[in-house]
Amino acid sequence: MNEAEFKQIADFLNTLADESKKITLDGFNSDKQLKIKDDGSPVTEFDVNAEKIMCELISEKFPDHSILAEENGTKKLDSDYTWILDPIDGTRSFIIGRPLWGTLICLTFKGMPIIGLADFPALNERWLGYEKNCFLNNCQFKSNHVFTNDISQATLGSTGPSLFSQEGKKKYDALINATRYHVWSGDCHNYCLIIKGGLDLVVEQGLAAYDIFPLIPILKSQDITITDWIGNQLHLENFSSKYSTVVAKDTEIYKSAINILK
Amino acid sequence: MNEAEFKQIADFLNTLADESKKITLDGFNSDKQLKIKDDGSPVTEFDVNAEKIMCELISEKFPDHSILAEENGTKKLDSDYTWILDPIDGTRSFIIGRPLWGTLICLTFKGMPIIGLADFPALNERWLGYEKNCFLNNCQFKSNHVFTNDISQATLGSTGPSLFSQEGKKKYDALINATRYHVWSGDCHNYCLIIKGGLDLVVEQGLAAYDIFPLIPILKSQDITITDWIGNQLHLENFSSKYSTVVAKDTEIYKSAINILK
Repeated sequence: MNEAEFKQIADFLNTLADESKKITLDGFNSDKQLKIKDDGSPVTEFDVNAEKIMCELISEKFPDHSILAEENGTKKLDSDYTWILDPIDGTRSFIIGRPLWGTLICLTFKGMPIIGLADFPALNERWLGYEKNCFLNNCQFKSNHVFTNDISQATLGSTGPSLFSQEGKKKYDALINATRYHVWSGDCHNYCLIIKGGLDLVVEQGLAAYDIFPLIPILKSQDITITDWIGNQLHLENFSSKYSTVVAKDTEIYKSAINILK
Repeated sequence: MNEAEFKQIADFLNTLADESKKITLDGFNSDKQLKIKDDGSPVTEFDVNAEKIMCELISEKFPDHSILAEENGTKKLDSDYTWILDPIDGTRSFIIGRPLWGTLICLTFKGMPIIGLADFPALNERWLGYEKNCFLNNCQFKSNHVFTNDISQATLGSTGPSLFSQEGKKKYDALINATRYHVWSGDCHNYCLIIKGGLDLVVEQGLAAYDIFPLIPILKSQDITITDWIGNQLHLENFSSKYSTVVAKDTEIYKSAINILK
């Protein structure tokens, strides 16, 4: 894909995010109707409606492309291109009124995410990344933060203790002990904090592709490392795969984390 | 204190919050210098500077009043009035760039908080409460949210698992099991989510007076119950006391929570 093609796709990602935002932000400011899914996670009518409109727009523009979406919009076609969508990542935050939830969208080619968007409607903050380009609210973003390379000085974040396996939680506790301090919660917003320099390390377990793939092009555009817990690149194998992830800006901290987690 | 006197004090609380915000918001948007206090909690230069300016303004206007402040500004005089301040509640959020930290200020009379303010500079959200008055960004606030009265349908929040004692954590785990779903993190912002209706119940242990007293008049103005874990009102006994707290809008949910925690 050349630069002009990337720009066209970026415009389309922005359109999808704009349409989703109309529904989700409206919902965020209203009383919410909540259902519990089979896996115990919450879902709202806004989740479902925002996904529906994005899937329709994608199918209209790219009828041959596959779609992997969190709610009902998934369709698997014989295509090298797959769109991955999560209209409301951080549904718990959304439901209780905490503004850290985000809308995640990306396009993958042969299983690798090539352009991604993370929108935070309630914070008025939108990230978009491809190749070496990273945009915050449509302006080129470059961090001038100086990151530590010492894990004992690092800040660490993860969404919640109940998302780890028993063995995973033990390893994560060892990582908490190895770092300077630690925060829970945050979902996809934690990755933006790595980009801006507030967090050094984000570690998760049991993520679906739609929780993490849209962030990969944004993170990679800022030379932030993202792999699974044994150091492999993430690749879309099948739509129901789960991913354990390590995300770090500094290479030394990344290596120290992998040594504890692998 | 009559209405005119409350309005004058409210203006002064807003002035304190405005002065604090100039320092803290500037700090939030910059790279932060971080120290670790004796108790292991982090503190920034912005914390210290914001507290200093608020203490100076209070001492100038009310030289006879006592002050209880998180960092160095505490002074204990022979007065019925004590100001309680926390320039940055949620220092961890502040340091990593998460916008949920707040500035807490209140005035107590004979140990009872009579007017309180909670400002969220990075969210542009300020709460102020006294008697039956609650203001959000200077506008009278009245929730029309219909709260559940069934604990099995309730949303529960608390700042972090490491803040509980071992016994406290067991009881809190029982409360997690009794409710519909649960979130970590949020510090003082969680109380605003109770006011707006996103959370039904917030439970903490080991809070200092400056973590919670400024929120009491705001919560009480909205008929939200706040007591310790055995059902007693919070009262400023001495400056170093720690408080275990239960905050709930609905009386049935409050009682169910107390039965699990006491």
